[in-house]
Amino acid sequence: MLEDLLSTRHRLAAGATRAVDELERNFDCARTSACTHVFLKTSFDLARAAAADPANLERPLMGLAVSIKDLFDVAGEVTTAGSLLLQNSAPAQRDSVAVARLRRAGAAIMGRTNMTEFAYSGVGVNPHYGTPANAVSTDVPRIPGGSSSGAAVSVATGAAWIGLGSDTGGSIRIPAALNGVVGFKSTARLVPSMGAIPLSTTLDTIGAITRSVGDAILAHQILANRLVTLSPAPLACYRLAIVKNVMHDNLDPTVAQTYQRCIDALRHAGATIDEIELEGLQELGAMQATGGLSAAESYTWHRHLIEQHSAAYDPRVLTRILRGATMSACDYLELVNARRAWVTRMEQSVQGYDAVLAPTVPIVAPPLADVAPGPAWDADFFRINALLLRNTSVVNMLDGCAVSLPCQRDGEPAVGLMVWHAAMHDDGVLNVARQIEQMLQKQ
Amino acid sequence: MLEDLLSTRHRLAAGATRAVDELERNFDCARTSACTHVFLKTSFDLARAAAADPANLERPLMGLAVSIKDLFDVAGEVTTAGSLLLQNSAPAQRDSVAVARLRRAGAAIMGRTNMTEFAYSGVGVNPHYGTPANAVSTDVPRIPGGSSSGAAVSVATGAAWIGLGSDTGGSIRIPAALNGVVGFKSTARLVPSMGAIPLSTTLDTIGAITRSVGDAILAHQILANRLVTLSPAPLACYRLAIVKNVMHDNLDPTVAQTYQRCIDALRHAGATIDEIELEGLQELGAMQATGGLSAAESYTWHRHLIEQHSAAYDPRVLTRILRGATMSACDYLELVNARRAWVTRMEQSVQGYDAVLAPTVPIVAPPLADVAPGPAWDADFFRINALLLRNTSVVNMLDGCAVSLPCQRDGEPAVGLMVWHAAMHDDGVLNVARQIEQMLQKQ
Repeated sequence: MLEDLLSTRHRLAAGATRAVDELERNFDCARTSACTHVFLKTSFDLARAAAADPANLERPLMGLAVSIKDLFDVAGEVTTAGSLLLQNSAPAQRDSVAVARLRRAGAAIMGRTNMTEFAYSGVGVNPHYGTPANAVSTDVPRIPGGSSSGAAVSVATGAAWIGLGSDTGGSIRIPAALNGVVGFKSTARLVPSMGAIPLSTTLDTIGAITRSVGDAILAHQILANRLVTLSPAPLACYRLAIVKNVMHDNLDPTVAQTYQRCIDALRHAGATIDEIELEGLQELGAMQATGGLSAAESYTWHRHLIEQHSAAYDPRVLTRILRGATMSACDYLELVNARRAWVTRMEQSVQGYDAVLAPTVPIVAPPLADVAPGPAWDADFFRINALLLRNTSVVNMLDGCAVSLPCQRDGEPAVGLMVWHAAMHDDGVLNVARQIEQMLQKQ
Repeated sequence: MLEDLLSTRHRLAAGATRAVDELERNFDCARTSACTHVFLKTSFDLARAAAADPANLERPLMGLAVSIKDLFDVAGEVTTAGSLLLQNSAPAQRDSVAVARLRRAGAAIMGRTNMTEFAYSGVGVNPHYGTPANAVSTDVPRIPGGSSSGAAVSVATGAAWIGLGSDTGGSIRIPAALNGVVGFKSTARLVPSMGAIPLSTTLDTIGAITRSVGDAILAHQILANRLVTLSPAPLACYRLAIVKNVMHDNLDPTVAQTYQRCIDALRHAGATIDEIELEGLQELGAMQATGGLSAAESYTWHRHLIEQHSAAYDPRVLTRILRGATMSACDYLELVNARRAWVTRMEQSVQGYDAVLAPTVPIVAPPLADVAPGPAWDADFFRINALLLRNTSVVNMLDGCAVSLPCQRDGEPAVGLMVWHAAMHDDGVLNVARQIEQMLQKQ
């Protein structure tokens, strides 16, 4: 496992290192070429002051490095959400709730991370500020995944211990999976979104990218201002499900093999694993045929900006926002009603299981060249984007919760295992993920 | 004060009367000409069985008469919501939650009450089933108020002790005020609406029309399945507000005089009464200019019915539902967002007060002739309707709670005093209303 925040905290508590020295190590990582395009702004001096503040040593994050996705308000900074058009906005007057909670917990906030413009897309490409390269690919430059692209790369490269992100269809879990780190999307209502630029007010979830499940639990406790109930139950006590339909479709060979090896190891460890069919997964396309929650809700936020600045948008983002312009109130409300009924059916289908497992993303990170401008540009882009979002977005529609944790071995391409469930099963999926992480470390 | 359910229950408990005999008295009332057009269906024999069931004597409602507005599912009955087009629907398979709770509490459910088609309008006119006459007007036939027209008249005439109703913009409080009885619209979330045909899923509130505030408390406790905290504090302990702008505009002389007399008496009893301005009241028109929550949400429910049966609708109702057809998702979401911000501002304006007071309806019940077909038909109808709804609908937009209680003296035209506040101040407004009711009885 990667060195994580909890182990660094142990070393700090033992006097084996100092927060200010740890921070310089993070800054060194942030200055390497691996972090090109990762930060839209750094605030090293302010972070140094936080690490040097003796009061922070008594707080959970002990002055350790945290990065902030560019859509969160940080007092005194301009929030651009990866766009050009908000560059000249007034600086935020106060911290967003998530940033305030991290700061109160002793975070050294060291920079604003790059993202897909306005959090649209799971690919992670940003035409305005450049696209961070995938942190773990060794052959060719590959996509970082998005929309929290910089957040994931900042954590994977060692520039930060926690990357604050947001997840509307997979924007925390996809880049976490593709960069070999952990991403947790809690039940949305558990973390306040005030002070974050919205994509979908219904689906947006605030959460963190971290280097271990233990760190994910710590970060969630801070962001949600609640305690997670930890269970020491071994894997043999858990009843898990894997989903035969949709979620296992079109896995690339690397993902298929890595994922299967993990499922086999879980069975070997004594976990009960049922194969189930979720009919609801086949219904999602028809349900969202008139548009989608994100389109309607983001168009509502962007309408006046688009009227004045449409040329400043990434055209791939603008196209998707504009889908919301033609949606009627009735279409929207029918979708809200249909979703409510769908959630009830889905909850019945997964009830009785401690968690459901699936590959976070069905493919390994595609080469950046595959989504570069060219003749088949948009078709390739939207095909890959749809594939990246396919499994993760189910959990957002479900109002559920999910951890993505790396399940590849050292030297293998990064593959994420998604441990998910319905709303308010957060502690359950975190406990299962923690047990799986321990199992994988022993292999 | 009118004889009420609580006093009848005392007589039952003392052996001074029997539930079955009380029920026959209710049926006698229901058979008088005063109840013409009040019931769309009666179920006297089933009610007799409930009153004769010894188990019900141990329950809070003791087998006493309750009427049900026609939009609630009652197992085995067709729910038409005052329309022709649902007449041939399948009977409900189970009771709505509200009906089930009343039944479990020992209600003798004795009939389905007439209403404005699909709960649209505060006037109470129904062209399909006839319009119940106002129960207390003595000069000319006057409107009953709506939409829970039959519910209010059933309680005012003595045909039932509790009239189950619903209130989206005033549909419980308006007919209660115009018929000299009590109507309580709780905070919407406190009573489940499952099994009731919706008008606005955001604004609909299930509640009861009763003959006293004490009965309103009892009915609410049953419908909300919770206990109201009663406070014995006298009026001198309360800090109340009256609203100078909008809510006092265009009061007819009878309402102005009766209301002012009540406010004077409250001051005389030692209550602190501040005159306040609520700027928010001036913003409601602009906020709802693109349509309204009810239009969008009811059109969503009616869309497919309208496609097939538009000719079967009351044209005045259809016109209003169809306003929702042209609303965009963005307009709807902007209204939802604007409402949220408006609620916050309004809550700040009324915070610190135990309750706010206003006339429930600015006019006494207009003659039925004023809304009868004629040259100025629709203009008169919609003008009167807007006036009837003006004060009450503020509370629905606020997501608040309100009691309407009669404040006229014997022999005077019925005038309602509305005691209201923001969400979850239900116990507060009920306590204030109970004190005011006691004060008025002593005069």
